[in-house]
Amino acid sequence: MSEEERNLIEILEENIPIDISKYINYVQSPHCGAIATFAGTTRDTFEGKAVLELRYEAYVPMAIRCIKSICLSARSSWNLSSIAVAHRLGPVPVGETSVFIATSAVHRADALDACKFMIDEVKASVPIWKKEVYTNGEVWKENLEFLERRDELCKPVADQGTVCGEKVEARREKRGCCAGKVKVVVNLDS
Amino acid sequence: MSEEERNLIEILEENIPIDISKYINYVQSPHCGAIATFAGTTRDTFEGKAVLELRYEAYVPMAIRCIKSICLSARSSWNLSSIAVAHRLGPVPVGETSVFIATSAVHRADALDACKFMIDEVKASVPIWKKEVYTNGEVWKENLEFLERRDELCKPVADQGTVCGEKVEARREKRGCCAGKVKVVVNLDS
Repeated sequence: MSEEERNLIEILEENIPIDISKYINYVQSPHCGAIATFAGTTRDTFEGKAVLELRYEAYVPMAIRCIKSICLSARSSWNLSSIAVAHRLGPVPVGETSVFIATSAVHRADALDACKFMIDEVKASVPIWKKEVYTNGEVWKENLEFLERRDELCKPVADQGTVCGEKVEARREKRGCCAGKVKVVVNLDS
Repeated sequence: MSEEERNLIEILEENIPIDISKYINYVQSPHCGAIATFAGTTRDTFEGKAVLELRYEAYVPMAIRCIKSICLSARSSWNLSSIAVAHRLGPVPVGETSVFIATSAVHRADALDACKFMIDEVKASVPIWKKEVYTNGEVWKENLEFLERRDELCKPVADQGTVCGEKVEARREKRGCCAGKVKVVVNLDS
């Protein structure tokens, strides 16, 4: 990874808001013509129920390892300069950002496509769990993508690869590094 | 367009930097779970030549009309809350943002795909011209997409539609509103 190819990965402890401008500044470079970002924010309703906040928990060393691997995978597919990924832990009130991705590149297609890939992979394969807190209760949730990916990973496969962040098409044949880290998730909603 | 479906379009006069946080705040909503952004920035080289700055000129009323039309088109394809588009005019030094797009939606795929569509369409069909200022001269430039789109639009076609911002596949059969506005563009580089 050259001087211009930098990754910044931060899992933020409770009650530390994501400073979006910090990550945009990080990926900005005079050599780049494009910066793409994605912010995932807490919305006030889920399936008709009023949401008060989301709460996130993670196995941090594994989450960082997975995100690093996703960065590597993105760089193998697109010509990128810098990547920044931030994820909050603890409560995230309605309207606030829980996850933020920023990618920079010489050309915009690289930055945009890699940004989309990054957030899809973070949602699908990084061991970060979400609790939805409603006005009348709370429930641990996984992203639908995570469940689908895990179901696939639990099937017997010939190739027992261990790398996170490979493209879905490739990963369908492999076992991800995160699959064994889903310990206990009780979904009261289903 | 409902209260939650808002567009903010700003063509900024010379020497007014793009305040990214303003546009992100504009599209943010407690009903949304996703914000995607794209920033186009001046990079320091183009085809091996050192770039000092870019300079932009626009026929502003037509540019705004085109961007409004692109917003409409995006809303017809994706479920969006708010859209913000800002474009600077005049000189934009290396490292600074010349164009910024922000889209918000309940779900991330809508925000991300619409953001990519918006910047692709803005580059391809909005009458904003760019001058590249090098250390040893300067040259007016159009985006490659704009030239390609204009070439297509100049071909005789049966359907003389006049709406900007339709998807490329659809536009190939139509004449865009911007095609007649390309008056004089001297490209010394070719």
